Amino acid sequence: MKKALILLGCPESPAQTPLAIYTTYRLTEIGYLVTVASTPSAKKLLEVADPDEHYVKNKMDIETCLDGLEEGLYDFLVGFVHKDAAVSYFVTFYHILNSKSLAIVFHREKEKLGFFEKTIKENTEAETITARAYHNPTPIRVRLDRALKKMEEL
Amino acid sequence: MKKALILLGCPESPAQTPLAIYTTYRLTEIGYLVTVASTPSAKKLLEVADPDEHYVKNKMDIETCLDGLEEGLYDFLVGFVHKDAAVSYFVTFYHILNSKSLAIVFHREKEKLGFFEKTIKENTEAETITARAYHNPTPIRVRLDRALKKMEEL
Repeated sequence: MKKALILLGCPESPAQTPLAIYTTYRLTEIGYLVTVASTPSAKKLLEVADPDEHYVKNKMDIETCLDGLEEGLYDFLVGFVHKDAAVSYFVTFYHILNSKSLAIVFHREKEKLGFFEKTIKENTEAETITARAYHNPTPIRVRLDRALKKMEEL
Repeated sequence: MKKALILLGCPESPAQTPLAIYTTYRLTEIGYLVTVASTPSAKKLLEVADPDEHYVKNKMDIETCLDGLEEGLYDFLVGFVHKDAAVSYFVTFYHILNSKSLAIVFHREKEKLGFFEKTIKENTEAETITARAYHNPTPIRVRLDRALKKMEEL
């Protein structure tokens, strides 16, 4: 079974936890075994948002995940990029895994958004989805559906 | 079957959507048929966070809900209070429904928290849970579990 890893940083945006669950749901639907690696606060939000573990079945601490990481361990990397720390995590995981990768870049401020996107593009060859988003998950959800559909067709 | 109504205002806090799902889950577990009435942006986040409708089966627009509201329609009212508008909604719904009620008051700023709590207490006889919370859902989750346990024992 193909394995995907989703990276979640500090949950500043109200859209992050819902979108992380949605991404897990969609990737599971297309045949991935999904693990979500996150900071402790992001993990608590996932636990409260999915108390039956109906969607997110495998969760781990992002630092523990990084310690055991090696090339080939996951087939697909998805990173939620909403802060500087999340950019660093994504770039680091990208270069260790050397797998197909997608960065989901979102922020309410246009300047931050541009800076994060530029940093990801300069440092990786990952596919990138970018949207100004804070409350409203729809711009990201639509782009994510499109990116996964394209991936399935390849 | 007993019916509960959960009110969700604008989702400023990353904890609100996860906690709304958790509250729906817990109330369903103790035998309530739960409806979540929310603003459009809060509804979108619920849809993305629970794409299979595993937890939240009944969603409606908060204004539509208010239009059709009358005493006795729900047995239990739970309101997430995180903004001025949410205080007004809760007090209005409380006085129309005249049911058992619980206000979940949370904010990252101590002053806002005190003001919201005071306004709820001056205008209703609802039970109130209060916690400084933004990222971390645990302080609210613990108090909610305690309040529901007390309710079950009555």
